[in-house]
Amino acid sequence: MADEEIRVAPIRRTLDHATILGLLGAFALIVVAIYLGGSFGAFVDLPAILIVFGGTITATMICFSLGEVRGTVTVIGKTLFQSIREPSHAAVHVMQLASMARRHGILSLQDVLDTLRFEPFLQKGVSMVVDGIPGDEVESILRRDVVARAQRHMRAASVLRRASELAPAMGLIGTLIGLVQMLSNLEDPSTIGPSMAIALLTTFYGAVLANVVLVPLATKLERNSSLEELVNTIYVLGVASIGRQENPRRLEMLVNSIMPPANRIRFFD
Amino acid sequence: MADEEIRVAPIRRTLDHATILGLLGAFALIVVAIYLGGSFGAFVDLPAILIVFGGTITATMICFSLGEVRGTVTVIGKTLFQSIREPSHAAVHVMQLASMARRHGILSLQDVLDTLRFEPFLQKGVSMVVDGIPGDEVESILRRDVVARAQRHMRAASVLRRASELAPAMGLIGTLIGLVQMLSNLEDPSTIGPSMAIALLTTFYGAVLANVVLVPLATKLERNSSLEELVNTIYVLGVASIGRQENPRRLEMLVNSIMPPANRIRFFD
Amino acid sequence: MADEEIRVAPIRRTLDHATILGLLGAFALIVVAIYLGGSFGAFVDLPAILIVFGGTITATMICFSLGEVRGTVTVIGKTLFQSIREPSHAAVHVMQLASMARRHGILSLQDVLDTLRFEPFLQKGVSMVVDGIPGDEVESILRRDVVARAQRHMRAASVLRRASELAPAMGLIGTLIGLVQMLSNLEDPSTIGPSMAIALLTTFYGAVLANVVLVPLATKLERNSSLEELVNTIYVLGVASIGRQENPRRLEMLVNSIMPPANRIRFFD
Amino acid sequence: MADEEIRVAPIRRTLDHATILGLLGAFALIVVAIYLGGSFGAFVDLPAILIVFGGTITATMICFSLGEVRGTVTVIGKTLFQSIREPSHAAVHVMQLASMARRHGILSLQDVLDTLRFEPFLQKGVSMVVDGIPGDEVESILRRDVVARAQRHMRAASVLRRASELAPAMGLIGTLIGLVQMLSNLEDPSTIGPSMAIALLTTFYGAVLANVVLVPLATKLERNSSLEELVNTIYVLGVASIGRQENPRRLEMLVNSIMPPANRIRFFD
Amino acid sequence: MADEEIRVAPIRRTLDHATILGLLGAFALIVVAIYLGGSFGAFVDLPAILIVFGGTITATMICFSLGEVRGTVTVIGKTLFQSIREPSHAAVHVMQLASMARRHGILSLQDVLDTLRFEPFLQKGVSMVVDGIPGDEVESILRRDVVARAQRHMRAASVLRRASELAPAMGLIGTLIGLVQMLSNLEDPSTIGPSMAIALLTTFYGAVLANVVLVPLATKLERNSSLEELVNTIYVLGVASIGRQENPRRLEMLVNSIMPPANRIRFFD
Repeated sequence: MADEEIRVAPIRRTLDHATILGLLGAFALIVVAIYLGGSFGAFVDLPAILIVFGGTITATMICFSLGEVRGTVTVIGKTLFQSIREPSHAAVHVMQLASMARRHGILSLQDVLDTLRFEPFLQKGVSMVVDGIPGDEVESILRRDVVARAQRHMRAASVLRRASELAPAMGLIGTLIGLVQMLSNLEDPSTIGPSMAIALLTTFYGAVLANVVLVPLATKLERNSSLEELVNTIYVLGVASIGRQENPRRLEMLVNSIMPPANRIRFFD
Repeated sequence: MADEEIRVAPIRRTLDHATILGLLGAFALIVVAIYLGGSFGAFVDLPAILIVFGGTITATMICFSLGEVRGTVTVIGKTLFQSIREPSHAAVHVMQLASMARRHGILSLQDVLDTLRFEPFLQKGVSMVVDGIPGDEVESILRRDVVARAQRHMRAASVLRRASELAPAMGLIGTLIGLVQMLSNLEDPSTIGPSMAIALLTTFYGAVLANVVLVPLATKLERNSSLEELVNTIYVLGVASIGRQENPRRLEMLVNSIMPPANRIRFFD
Repeated sequence: MADEEIRVAPIRRTLDHATILGLLGAFALIVVAIYLGGSFGAFVDLPAILIVFGGTITATMICFSLGEVRGTVTVIGKTLFQSIREPSHAAVHVMQLASMARRHGILSLQDVLDTLRFEPFLQKGVSMVVDGIPGDEVESILRRDVVARAQRHMRAASVLRRASELAPAMGLIGTLIGLVQMLSNLEDPSTIGPSMAIALLTTFYGAVLANVVLVPLATKLERNSSLEELVNTIYVLGVASIGRQENPRRLEMLVNSIMPPANRIRFFD
Repeated sequence: MADEEIRVAPIRRTLDHATILGLLGAFALIVVAIYLGGSFGAFVDLPAILIVFGGTITATMICFSLGEVRGTVTVIGKTLFQSIREPSHAAVHVMQLASMARRHGILSLQDVLDTLRFEPFLQKGVSMVVDGIPGDEVESILRRDVVARAQRHMRAASVLRRASELAPAMGLIGTLIGLVQMLSNLEDPSTIGPSMAIALLTTFYGAVLANVVLVPLATKLERNSSLEELVNTIYVLGVASIGRQENPRRLEMLVNSIMPPANRIRFFD
Repeated sequence: MADEEIRVAPIRRTLDHATILGLLGAFALIVVAIYLGGSFGAFVDLPAILIVFGGTITATMICFSLGEVRGTVTVIGKTLFQSIREPSHAAVHVMQLASMARRHGILSLQDVLDTLRFEPFLQKGVSMVVDGIPGDEVESILRRDVVARAQRHMRAASVLRRASELAPAMGLIGTLIGLVQMLSNLEDPSTIGPSMAIALLTTFYGAVLANVVLVPLATKLERNSSLEELVNTIYVLGVASIGRQENPRRLEMLVNSIMPPANRIRFFD
């Protein structure tokens, strides 16, 4: 039955469609709205891009350290391109590994290690157990990992939140610069319109950057982080239980006790 | 007396008049205000609708997963078209069922199962008890259900809250696009007015979407969710008490202990 | 001495001068400011009134149930036209009743029941005690009443808070409707001014409704509710103590223990 | 040594320079900025003053009772003209009194009572002890006083906070009145400028009233209140310890235990 | 090995690159954006600088005491020019000192005291231990220092936060002054543009001051303060452990127990 179990749930990390579709969709809508109104060129202005994007990045840098800003970019990459596993799928998978280890011995997990390559955290835990490290020690090492990862995500989310507050402010600063320049030189009335258009561009950039990119990504990051913490805690419980050679039924109870009610599993009937 | 009791309180789910009247009334007022001022056509603009409604949906999608956004639409449907029962009515009903079961035996509830079809949660609980599942087990299954349902509602309310913050931002972005386009092409002064009118439309759509639809629905959802949790907990207590064949007087005490003071019941005099 | 005691503190509910003077004063100031600037007629516009007042009411209705909105109006009426008694006056009054009952027996309170008609909560409690209902039972019934009343007030305050957030939004929506209409029809420049004036009226109505009426009433309601809860709890303690025929000195200690330090009383020297 | 101790720290209440300098400085800056730009007369308008100052006061009155608004004015007077003593100075002073009483007896404090006239709270406590009231009773009376005073300050701070939220709203209402009046009478274009100037004045008044007066005073009040509570608690501890004729070393320990670490004292070496 | 240990981690305080680069970068971007648009002179106006910078400082002074405002400037200086040590580096360093003291005696630390001159807090602790002050006493003195320092930082951060709220308000007040002056003198239309440009300058200054300087510095200060508290607590634990002549392995456990999981060290293998 062990092989069959593994066949039942091969791990495959999928792209997070909501994030990618949402981002593409929102930008497509903005581009379409611009094209419908006419010239696209009026919406690209290098100094405006400089002051909003550069200003948001530099002001965010003052708030944090270089390492935290860099870490945020890495974390965003992972948020964009990977979707989190369903907690109940992760739980079923862990139960399958546990009952396989129960029947054929821990060393039998060696054969399935390769199928876990898309879930490196689980793979690391299983390979530690296969290498004979005691269950309790594996648990304490992995738990520390889970907490550190959650802290990293929360830090990244707070960087994004702060940046989302600074972006509209930078847009306002850019617009004020443009307005002051325009008002100081009112000699040729025909330039008023285009000058104001350029002045408003920074407010536009700031609003898009904050509301389409930074706020949604921060919200998604916080949401994903707590979900990933749950999934990884399930992995920790499972791997530690395998390492301690406990009865898988006990593992099921443990896993269900940390699950939200709607996601609880019934592996044994 | 059992029959009489059931006759006393036949369950009937009514529409939530406040939500429907409020929504219809608010939109009617806006339509009337527009008609009084003249042309209705000036208030319909496809690109504006696209950027505000599409932008709010796509940006909300980035924040959450596709499933959560879809789940919110389902939950809104239920909020709009169903009103929650009064906790004290639910309590009296449960007391009636309990005293009927006490006098004529649990199996007598079989006959009234059909009259509970508008309250599926209660119906499910009673039919489990009639099927002989022990009271404690019924209670633990139903309680899990209550919590899961409350979590689903809270998630939907937070999706609506986030969307209500993004809608005005999308309105602003659309207005900025319109203003930049208008200001870049000031050659024909006669087009300035209509162009600005269209630019302002997205701000109008965003304000209506947020303040007439999203914020009120989120508030209503949070309010209804805690009310429904109370009513369902009353059902859980009642069904479990029936399953354990306890004295209905004990049930009355239990139910009153979780009721707000104004809603407490006196079933036995 | 009993008669003298009652004469000392006849209960009389006075109007809440701060609320009425404040409301009249604020509106008088606005009216004066309008008259000083000229025509009053420019500030009355039926569609503007419809969209702001109607819109705020309908959008608030979506957030709550019809019953809650109606209950809020009732509660506002009481807040406007009645001032809460001073906690220390209430405490002294209760001490007077307690020492009268101590000297002349509980039935002597029958004679003063009529003088309590402006404080119906206290009157109800005293008449229950006179009717011979045991002190502990009176206490539990009245306490439930106090909590239910506080919950009703808190609900009304949250309705007002939500309405105070929706009123300026409705003002903005009305102004946007007016602006779009004006900008779509710029043919006759002489109408621009009056059209914008009417468009701004809704913002004006929304600002007045929120800042002069709704926010102040919500604040007052929250303040009065906690004060009334204190006064009523003093009544509950007093009536229960009379019912249990306890020493009034014990009652004084009890009452002082729930009083803010500045309001504590010394009835016995 | 007793005389010497009193000589070491004669109590003198000084003006709070930060509050007075800050208020004078901020208003001086505004006046200078106005003079640099030209005519001062354009910034004084009676109806504008009426609507902003009167409106803020009346709307605040609705929120609270007349007594609370009057109490706030009294409390502001004290905040402006008195600076709070340094907690460590107060502690040293109390230690000096305690060791004087230890050496020469409690009655010797009679001679220094007059030097405490700028610190009436401490004076009241010491004279109670000199009059022979037991230490524990003095402590309970004074503690009640400290709490009542802190509550009064917190209430005043919340009145100021609410007023600081209402002032800009009243400014907006005034500006809307002015704009509507101006836009209704556009016949003579030469009056547009001055009319808009007057309309903007109320927004200016509201912004100055809120940001230069009300918000800073509320912040200062909250800060001073917690400092004064600390100083008065030190006095309570000291006076009670003197009344109980305890060893001053025990008092030093007590006082240091409630001090922030940076302010702890070492009276005995 | 002791010498080698010290050689491994000579303490060197570096500049905080993120703060300095961020500030320089943000201001460079603003200057570049201004130069690209033309004249730099239009962006310097003495009265505008006076009202925004002076107004923010004076209004902040009202909120706090002179000492607190002065203390904030000192704290900002340290935040700008010093970077905090990595907690794990600090922990390794402390472990090195502890094992050196273990092998060669506490007095051997005398030789390395000079290399700690960039970390005065650690130096002070070590020299106290070398002077023979008992470990427990050193710990209680240093702990008090750590708390006092953290309180000072939090106070400075709250001064910055309040100033960041007042700066845009001062910008608005300045702009309103400018607008009223311009609107009162509309005789020469050619001056409208430059007058409005100057009026907008204060809003520009306020936005830059708040969003590029005050908010980021307050955020950085809060972040650095909690980091410095951690590093200093590590020093306290280390110095106290050396003073008590405990086994360094126990110190490693203690230090790791207060570290965030990602930063834990393994000094002994």
